[in-house]
Amino acid sequence: MEKRPFLTHKRLKEIVSQYPTPFHIYDEKGIRDNMQRFNSAFQWNEGFKNYFAVKATPTPAILKILKDEGSGFDCSSHTELTLMERLHISGEEIMFTSNNTAVYEFEKARQMDVLINLDDVEHLTYLEKHAGLPEAISFRFNPGKLKEGNKIIGHPEESKFGMTKAQLFEGYQLAQNKGISRFGLHTMVASNELSSDYFIETAVLLFELIAELSQKLGIQFEFVNLGGGLGIPHRPGETAVDLNQVSIGIQQAYEKIILGNGFPPLSLFMECGRFVTGPYGLLISTVQHVKKSYKTYIGLDASMNNLMRPALYGAYHHISTFGQEQSHINPVDVTGSLCENNDKFAINRPLPPLKAGDLVAIHDSSAHRYAMGFNYNGRLRSGELLLKEDGSFVEIRRPENVEDYFQTMIF
Amino acid sequence: MEKRPFLTHKRLKEIVSQYPTPFHIYDEKGIRDNMQRFNSAFQWNEGFKNYFAVKATPTPAILKILKDEGSGFDCSSHTELTLMERLHISGEEIMFTSNNTAVYEFEKARQMDVLINLDDVEHLTYLEKHAGLPEAISFRFNPGKLKEGNKIIGHPEESKFGMTKAQLFEGYQLAQNKGISRFGLHTMVASNELSSDYFIETAVLLFELIAELSQKLGIQFEFVNLGGGLGIPHRPGETAVDLNQVSIGIQQAYEKIILGNGFPPLSLFMECGRFVTGPYGLLISTVQHVKKSYKTYIGLDASMNNLMRPALYGAYHHISTFGQEQSHINPVDVTGSLCENNDKFAINRPLPPLKAGDLVAIHDSSAHRYAMGFNYNGRLRSGELLLKEDGSFVEIRRPENVEDYFQTMIF
Repeated sequence: MEKRPFLTHKRLKEIVSQYPTPFHIYDEKGIRDNMQRFNSAFQWNEGFKNYFAVKATPTPAILKILKDEGSGFDCSSHTELTLMERLHISGEEIMFTSNNTAVYEFEKARQMDVLINLDDVEHLTYLEKHAGLPEAISFRFNPGKLKEGNKIIGHPEESKFGMTKAQLFEGYQLAQNKGISRFGLHTMVASNELSSDYFIETAVLLFELIAELSQKLGIQFEFVNLGGGLGIPHRPGETAVDLNQVSIGIQQAYEKIILGNGFPPLSLFMECGRFVTGPYGLLISTVQHVKKSYKTYIGLDASMNNLMRPALYGAYHHISTFGQEQSHINPVDVTGSLCENNDKFAINRPLPPLKAGDLVAIHDSSAHRYAMGFNYNGRLRSGELLLKEDGSFVEIRRPENVEDYFQTMIF
Repeated sequence: MEKRPFLTHKRLKEIVSQYPTPFHIYDEKGIRDNMQRFNSAFQWNEGFKNYFAVKATPTPAILKILKDEGSGFDCSSHTELTLMERLHISGEEIMFTSNNTAVYEFEKARQMDVLINLDDVEHLTYLEKHAGLPEAISFRFNPGKLKEGNKIIGHPEESKFGMTKAQLFEGYQLAQNKGISRFGLHTMVASNELSSDYFIETAVLLFELIAELSQKLGIQFEFVNLGGGLGIPHRPGETAVDLNQVSIGIQQAYEKIILGNGFPPLSLFMECGRFVTGPYGLLISTVQHVKKSYKTYIGLDASMNNLMRPALYGAYHHISTFGQEQSHINPVDVTGSLCENNDKFAINRPLPPLKAGDLVAIHDSSAHRYAMGFNYNGRLRSGELLLKEDGSFVEIRRPENVEDYFQTMIF
């Protein structure tokens, strides 16, 4: 599949004339349509909800759009819970999946009456002691060697997250003894995975586990959270996950293992982040310098602090250029300005000739972008725009300035 | 060499009772003594100056101590130049070594009349056009295949930094034609390197290049900047770079190649960061949870956002514990609270048994720590203290709060 920006060169130039580069621009229509497709693919399950992984895109305007489209929110810290509070979102619209959690975080989660997903059996007593127990509890399962993990997250048994199967039995029993009456089960074993089968297998694993736990402990489960990890096709030619195929596979397993064995219906939850917003945004930057030394370097006015994934993980992010002669494609490195050699958006990327002043669009930058950015070298993160459904745009995050950077300094 | 914290458990507990963990604490005496040793090792060179790499430790109180001890400052961005301005440091106390530099950065550098080190021959004309030319100019040399690079920085010919030898000839000639009268040469080819020979070889390469450039172009060089990259021993048993050995080796090469061939004296510059501050600080954290699933996890109240190097690079940072039974040492993972599996300070690290409430000190955290930290998952970076020479302590950077995190958001 070819990757094309959702903006024409002409429209982009109009925007740039009013709002200087670099900036990130979200595509409202893309995000809404995607959320609608997501919910519609799983409409067979009455309680279906994707708890959007707030860590992926913690930008208020985007979170509001998602809320509008019926999304829940997966929070992993006190700060993220506080962000939700500012957006007037609370209760079971939020699932709090933390690990190594501090008292002040559990307190906040209880105050806001969110669904709590525990990472360790010990945390149940800790929660009770410091913040009081809720009605509903979920535990996070780590399948260990039962599941291979995917290439990004690695082997589950090396992961700090979640509990063993034996610990789950212990946990639910203890919860039951403490008077908890509503139960859920959670796992999260993949990141940016494109195989449909992977998610279906995870669902089978959890449904079977729920059947076993229900039977042996005599408890009823109310929800199951399959985690996130639905990937997006970063490279041209990669195929997106077929959501309907994933959904049908999960539905079949659900009907067989859960309903077929007479267990009560479960609400199906997921916690995708990247899949929801990732593809619907572009990092827009202007070529600042073209440098030729041992190689050709296209120096942008954006740096890795605006998009860490290529530098951190060697991740591929497609780069669109506009109006340049496509017949003279040569491999170049596309760089930022940090005094850090890995400050590159692309290495040996075949691109048409570019010159200072040309615009480029870096794709799939609406998730894990601003959120992962640092200020190394004093580099400031740029602003964010929203391209609205009517074609107009609005600033939804202002660029950082020097005073932000100095904020915590004591002179 | 054993690695011991510069604070006793008793003193640390007193500090923690007044300033809750996690925090970073700098050792003023350690930093001052080290700067004095550094300057003293190179006192044979009249103009010797280390331009401290500000990106390593951009904390005002620390920069003031370094200024006090005669340090210069290496800046790589507009923000870092602005920080210097706030500290009333300007002119040739600063070297501005940027790359892919924007107009507003060159303007700032010229305003503050700092030494400018150019990364590309094209930047000379760019600088002239947009900000005017200074009296003195330096170019950054990239030795390409002439130098192997070190394992951290990689092969120089794959690096975005610097100019080829042919481009240097072109650059200095152009600079001369444009009326520039004072010249320097710079390179930076290593990071965290512990071999003395490596630095001596770099000096030989630059001295020979200066001899050749001087002869062929008829220009006089005033300074040479060998770059930074002096490493520190992170692991117990690793040996620190012998500064005197490095200095003697460089002196011998200088006397032979520069003075011995009748060239005028050069000021020797370096731009070490980590070597100057790195070892003289500890990240202090409290054990929050001990979790046993497939492995044992020591969960701290600090996370990777307070020290990125182990998660990013798999870097070893030694961890000291206090007062625990040393006879029962077992491998554990030491983790933070991010919803990110690489949020670990150590993997399979042999440590004595730890329990919630115990203090730990993570070593060598005074450089590339706060500066590289991000706010992923909404995790906030902690404060910084200075242990003064008289044994008292003072806060020199306040912890981040939720409002800092919300600063750029538009609700």
